[in-house]
Order: sequence, then structure tokens, then C-alpha cells
Amino acid sequence: MIEKIVIDRRSRTPLYLQIKNQIQEMISQNMIPKGIRMPPTRKLSRLLGVNRSTIVSAYNELSAEGLIESRVGSGTVVCERKGVEETISPVDPLMWSENFSISSKSIHHSIIRESVNWLSQEGVISLASGYPPPEYYPMEDFKKIMKRLLAENSRMLVHQSTCQGHSPLREIISQKMMLEGMSADPDELIIVSGSMQGLYFLARVLLDPGDIVVVEKPSFIGALQIFREAGARIIGVPVDEEGIQVDILENIVSHQRPKLIYTLPTYQNPSGTVLSLERRQRLLNTAYKYHVGIIEDNPSSRFYYGSTPPPSLKSLDRSNHVIHLSTFSKLLFPGLRIGWLAASQHVIERITRTRQFIDIHSNTLGEYVFYEFLKEDLIERHLIKLKKLYSRKRDIMISALSKYCSSLMNWNKPGGGFHIWCKLNKGLSSRELLRESFYEKVTFLAGGVFFPEDCEGDQWLRLSFTYQPEELIWEGIKRLSNALKRLEKKSKARIMPEKSLARPIV
Amino acid sequence: MIEKIVIDRRSRTPLYLQIKNQIQEMISQNMIPKGIRMPPTRKLSRLLGVNRSTIVSAYNELSAEGLIESRVGSGTVVCERKGVEETISPVDPLMWSENFSISSKSIHHSIIRESVNWLSQEGVISLASGYPPPEYYPMEDFKKIMKRLLAENSRMLVHQSTCQGHSPLREIISQKMMLEGMSADPDELIIVSGSMQGLYFLARVLLDPGDIVVVEKPSFIGALQIFREAGARIIGVPVDEEGIQVDILENIVSHQRPKLIYTLPTYQNPSGTVLSLERRQRLLNTAYKYHVGIIEDNPSSRFYYGSTPPPSLKSLDRSNHVIHLSTFSKLLFPGLRIGWLAASQHVIERITRTRQFIDIHSNTLGEYVFYEFLKEDLIERHLIKLKKLYSRKRDIMISALSKYCSSLMNWNKPGGGFHIWCKLNKGLSSRELLRESFYEKVTFLAGGVFFPEDCEGDQWLRLSFTYQPEELIWEGIKRLSNALKRLEKKSKARIMPEKSLARPIV
Repeated sequence: MIEKIVIDRRSRTPLYLQIKNQIQEMISQNMIPKGIRMPPTRKLSRLLGVNRSTIVSAYNELSAEGLIESRVGSGTVVCERKGVEETISPVDPLMWSENFSISSKSIHHSIIRESVNWLSQEGVISLASGYPPPEYYPMEDFKKIMKRLLAENSRMLVHQSTCQGHSPLREIISQKMMLEGMSADPDELIIVSGSMQGLYFLARVLLDPGDIVVVEKPSFIGALQIFREAGARIIGVPVDEEGIQVDILENIVSHQRPKLIYTLPTYQNPSGTVLSLERRQRLLNTAYKYHVGIIEDNPSSRFYYGSTPPPSLKSLDRSNHVIHLSTFSKLLFPGLRIGWLAASQHVIERITRTRQFIDIHSNTLGEYVFYEFLKEDLIERHLIKLKKLYSRKRDIMISALSKYCSSLMNWNKPGGGFHIWCKLNKGLSSRELLRESFYEKVTFLAGGVFFPEDCEGDQWLRLSFTYQPEELIWEGIKRLSNALKRLEKKSKARIMPEKSLARPIV
Repeated sequence: MIEKIVIDRRSRTPLYLQIKNQIQEMISQNMIPKGIRMPPTRKLSRLLGVNRSTIVSAYNELSAEGLIESRVGSGTVVCERKGVEETISPVDPLMWSENFSISSKSIHHSIIRESVNWLSQEGVISLASGYPPPEYYPMEDFKKIMKRLLAENSRMLVHQSTCQGHSPLREIISQKMMLEGMSADPDELIIVSGSMQGLYFLARVLLDPGDIVVVEKPSFIGALQIFREAGARIIGVPVDEEGIQVDILENIVSHQRPKLIYTLPTYQNPSGTVLSLERRQRLLNTAYKYHVGIIEDNPSSRFYYGSTPPPSLKSLDRSNHVIHLSTFSKLLFPGLRIGWLAASQHVIERITRTRQFIDIHSNTLGEYVFYEFLKEDLIERHLIKLKKLYSRKRDIMISALSKYCSSLMNWNKPGGGFHIWCKLNKGLSSRELLRESFYEKVTFLAGGVFFPEDCEGDQWLRLSFTYQPEELIWEGIKRLSNALKRLEKKSKARIMPEKSLARPIV
């Protein structure tokens, strides 16, 4: 309502009276109803472009006429009609936090604390994010495509899409998957707002509280969180250089009969390992034998910096046991939130139904943009560029680690993906290292968040090399080494008193 | 891999051999790994732009050399190395549908069947959707703004946003809410992908299975579905001309102690009623007295076509009991999926945490576009235009109803919103009417989906007047009246035999 106030600077009526009169009119015509809170003077003055004192004067006038009044805790409110004012008794505010659901409490505080590091802060070098660097987005291509889309069918760009997603986009993704040996008809695909949302949908339609999910140990933090929130029991199977240890896995599957196996077979997050072709076959055979579904999360298989990785589980699957997740967000334009999920038509149909009452569909404009990028093969071109860049960044990070950190930790050299997985020397804690890093203005993800059990993984940390410019990767590792040295000093200091205590006993 | 095949039409080597040789090379260099499925000949021929017979010949050659082979049920696959072929036993496909979660089964088939009508089919006039008509989107404004955004800070448009949403957008929404008497700091807002997603998040963080939610009867189909999926017990309180019946509500609240009250106080969906100011106060006092939170869903309060509706519950709330949901999707660009939710900071923080592991954030480009639309007051301008249009469409629908349908049903004339809520004469079923309407090529939502209990509401139907052009509204109602007449004839025919049976007894 208030926005309808018109200021006439050429009028002889003072501004405060113009405002007062118009508000009075609105109140008397019931356009501003009784009991409503008036905007604070500071804000109204900014909105109307007048001095605050002008608003104060207008409010004083209105107040003098009994039209508005100040109430403690409620600000200035419009009075009840003609003095028939109820006495308003104070009300206790509702303690919403006492009402939170049990499942929402599954989000560990520790995870949150670490996740804060995902946001880059002023002057802090974040080695926590595996997102692509914005300075490499192909903006000229984006502008060209947007221009054409706006000229051609602009109305459709902002119109509703379908729950399952823009069908030309599903069609072309289906074709691209075929080139990687994966058979998924457009009907067996759903467009999602990032592959994490796809995983979330899968948890909604496939998991009941108490169901068992087998994951790699370590595994993707987002997946662990989604399974926890669904009330699932999570069992971790350790990973070695060839990926998940399939003999242990088979043993667990045969005894526990899980509902799902969740795996990132190629450049696993966070460990960077690749499941060997032989183990892929064994994993599939285990799934076939015990009738367990597999969710293959595949954000990174195309980011290889040396030899090609083995084919995806989806492409090796002979009987519909594998659900495949992927996303554009690791490649370009993560802000557009577009990923996809390939599964049996039953699963797709069930998700589509469910989604109708969650967020209806992914944003249409993003669907159109990625369709054009795929159609014109701009994705492939950008991938080639990013692979060169990432392989260089990986090498820089490893050189810096060798130069600065080799006495206090070890790491792998991943053949692809976005992260380096490091192991601290015995006795050093990555959580404590994170605290020291805070003072050095560098962050990363401490290893504990990637393990199903909170107590595990504290010797590990994940460093991502995709996002930061090359010189900041170098500088970040240098800072990390300073934090490491401080940590080592402190932990030696902790051991020293024990030794001095030990002496008298000897 | 296969996409790397290069066809040289000037070469003397036949095309099929060029293709065969390149695939052979890829297999021998392990670029196409063993066990992988080759693309079907039809698809590969389309991709490479050659005849299908060319691909068939190439595959035959490869097959003759033992490099690939056809397997029943698996298509053509690359052979295991040098004849060391395992005999592959057939595997039963996984029956995913046997694995669906209990909560995902809460989506009633009947609802789905009716919802299909939301999608407009060829030649069918859908009166089921309350979306804005795309031909009225302000595309020139959109293009102008996109052009400027692309020129100014294009990289940020596609970069990641925050879980809570673009802060300038939250800032300006906070200001706009203030003008409607609602106080919500930017920190007390979260941007969501449509207000339904906001409601979904609220259910996730506030509801455990078994919790009680009080809703209006009838209520928004999406809300009912979300509460069902959360495992909540839903209690409906009937609505009359002044909205939800607060005396019944208070009685239920005092006895059942619900966790939440969900309400659409202004132009309620589907009934179109407006909760009177006096009842708003009583509803709030009930919430205060029993410490129950209120979710106010407010997609339509600004769409009034006569007198201004009473202030929102949020603006009348004196102590943080009301959560407020709203959206741009009913106004313009529903494909951009942007809405918002105002609540206590505790609730916002809990949703933000949870969302980090669902879809991370709403699409950034949509956030930027709506910020610009709000900043330049283009939203207000468009709202004025739409209100004129909708009020005219509402009147046309009512005239058509009066002309064609008055003998078989009644309806209200809503003072705002998007729908007309109609009651069939006794003995007529809206589900059956929907079936008849199918033959007349007109659809709507049958009333049953808006009631907590499946068996209720079959005498009602909802007709939406926003989406269809004016002439199709008229035509749609004409078709509906034909369906009504057929239905009446059938139901009379059903009664007749009873009468004829009755005679001998008399």
C-alpha cells in the first residue's frame, strides 16, 4: 500500500503533511488495515527518497490524531478503530527449534562446521571446492546461445517444463551416453537440479528407515548425509588402490542384504581411486547374485589426465541393476543446476511422480542452454580445455606438496578427477590441522566428513585443485605447510610432558 | 570414443573399412574397453551420417575377426581379450518397483491420474492449471534485462549461489514485504525453487511421522501430498464463506495438539474464500494459546479484483508464530522456479543446512532476473496488467457458467485468485464428470484431490481461469456443459431401472 504514496516536490504542502495525509486517507479507507505494522521510519524514508525527519514528523501527526501508535516490541502499528482498542497481552514467541524433526537432526554439527569452508572468505584460499573456475566459463558461447534463444523462442525459456525434463535435452543426453557405451532411452532419463538432487530423489523413493546402504569408505559427504537423513544404516567398505574391496563387499552383501550399493567407481570422491575393470565385473556379479541395486555416481569419469578409465558400470550392466547419475556442474555453469539420472523406467516414473510435489521441475532456461551446448558440441570443446588446465593444476599441487609437505604427510597422484587425498603422519589430526589452517588463511575438507562413522578418518584430508588459480594453489599449499608445522610443534609439546613424566618411573 | 571416428569421403578406402579400421584401432589400444556395448547400427549410422548398411558391414568385419560379437539381450559387445571369453549366464533383471519406499507409495494413483490433466494435450482445453498465460509474459522487459545482465556480470549469472539465496534478492524481497506490513529481515528469508519446494523443506525439518497437521478442507493438493509423504496425520477443518471455521479449529487444536496449522487465508486454493480479519485474529490467538506454528501459503493475495483483502497473518503476527510462503510463479516466468519463505532465523538456518544436501541452491540466473524485475518495479507493472486480465477472464468464465451450466451446478464468485470452486447437483460425481469431459476435450481438477480423505469432495470441482485465452474459456465451459448433460443422462438412466424394479413391489 505504502508504495502508492506520491511525493509532489512542487506542491506548497510540506512533504511530511503530504505523506501524513495520504497515510490517513489509506487508513480511513481501510486500505491499510488496523493492527498492521507501519514501516520503520528509516526504511520508509529511504523508499520515498525523503529525510527521515520528514517521516518522523508525519508519524507524529498520525500518532497525535490517534491513528497509529508505538507499541513496545511491535513497532508502530495502525490503531484499532476509534479507540475500541483491545488491551494486547504479550505473547511468548514460538520456540521453533524445539519442533525440529528427528531426521533434520541427522545433519552433524561437525559436518556443518567444516562445510562452512566451502564458502570462500576474504583472503582465504579455499582448497575445499571441486567446482570449475568461473574465469574459464565459455562466456562468449553462452552469450551467443542466449542471444539466439532469446530471439527464437524466448517465451518457452521461462515457461514451465515437465517433471521429467525438457525432452530434446533427454534425447541428446541419451545419444551422448550411447557414445560411452551406455544405453538409456530418453524415457529412462530424468533431468535433475544437479546430481545430488538426483541422489536425494533416489533416497526418497527407494529407502525406508532401517534399510542398509553399502558405500565406499571414504565416500562423498553429500551421499552420506542423504542416506543418514533417510534413516538408512550405512555400511562402509574400504577402498584400496583399485577401488572398493569387492571381496569384503561381497561378504557384507551376502550377510546383510543391503537395499543399495552406492559407488563412485571412477576417480572416487575423495580418494581419487579408479575401480579396476575386473573389480567392476565382480561388483556387478555380486549385485546380480544377491539382487541388489547399484547407484553409480559419475561426475568425473571424463576428467582423465592420462589413460582412459575402464567403462562405466552402467555400460557393463547386462540386466538393469545400475542407476547412473551425472551432472554438468563440474564442467561448467554450476549455477544453472542441471544434472541427470538414468534408471529403469519404473524408477524414473516413481521419481517423476514424487517430484511433482517437491519442486515440479528443474529450471527451463538451464535445460535449453545445456541442450544447445550439447548440440553444438561446445561441451566437448570445453572439456578438452578443462582437462589440460586441471592436469596442470594437479601437477602444480603435487609439486608444491612435494616441496613443502612431504615430511608430514603422504598423498596419491590421481589419474583424473578433482581432488588429492592426503594422509597425515601418525598422531596428526586433520581437524586440528583445519583449526591451525584458519590462522594461515587456507582451508580444505578434513577427512572425517567422508567416513560413515564420525570417529574415523581424522588422519586424512582432501585438497581440491580445480577452483583456485595456479599461483594460489602453490600459495595455498605453502600456507598449509605452515599450519602443518604449527600442528606438529603443538603435538610434540603434548608428547613431551608424557616423556618427562615417564622418566621418574624408569 | 566412437564420436572420434573420422569419415573421409575422398579416400579410396571404402567407408565401411574406414569405420572398421578405426574401431579396430580403438579396441586394440583399449580405448574401447572389452565388455562394452557397441552402439546399435541404426544409431551409429545416424551419428556418422552414413547408410546403416555401411555400419552393418563394418560390424560384420569386426565380428569375423573376433573383436566384437552379438549377444542375446545385450546387443553387440566388444569381446574379451583374445578369446578368453567367459560364458556369460543370463541374469534376471532387478525388479526395482519391489524396492520402492513406503513413503513414496503415499502418492495416490487417483491424484496422479487427475494430475495428468495439468499437461495440456492436443486440442484439449485444460481448465486445470492456475499458471499465468505465456503470451502475457513481459518478454521485452526480460530481453532488455538479460541483455544488460549478460553485458555486466555474465559470469556471476551461471556461478554458484548460496543455499539461502542471492542476498540482494533477499534484501529487496524484505523491503517489498515491509510495504505489505510484514517484517522479515533478509536473514529471515530463503529463496526456494517455487513455494511448493519451500513447503517441502518445512515438512522435512518440522514433521516426524505421526505428527498432526491441521489444514483447511478443501486444501491445496500439493500440501496434502507433502504432508502425506512426511507421514503426518492430516486433520481437515471445513471452510465457509469467511474461510476456515475457527471455532472448530480451536476445538481440534485444544484436543489434538497439532504441530502445525497450514492455511491459505487469502483466495484459498481451491475454494477462493478469504479469511475475515476477525477470524485471522482468532486463528492467531489460538496458535498463541496452544503454541502451534502456522504456515501461511500466500501465492495469491495480491491478485484481488475488487476490494483489498485483509492483511496477511504474517503482518498481524506479534510473536513469530507464522511462517510465510510466496512465489513469483503465479505472476510470471514459472519456468525460472523462484519463490521464497520467511520464517524465524532458526527455521531458515535449519532449512539451509538441510538443503545443502538436497539441491544446494535455486538457479542463480533466475535469482538475478527476479532481482532486476523487482528493482525496476516491473513486477508491479505486470501485476496491474494481469489483474485486469484475470478479472475479465473470471467474469467470462462466470458468464459462461451462468449461460450453460446453471441447472446442474453452483459456484462462487471469488474476489481474487485463480480458480472457481463449483458444486455439482446432488448425485453427480466430479470424477465421473471428468471421464465424460475427456470425450468433450476439456479438463479440470475433480474435487476429491483437495480433501484429506480420498472419499470426500466428489461433488466439487475446480475450474481455473488464468491460463486459457478468453475465447477458449467460453468454449471450455460449453464443452463442460455437454459433459454435464451426458453425465446427467447416465445418472438418470441408473436411477430408472430402480424405479422400474420398484413397481412390481408396490
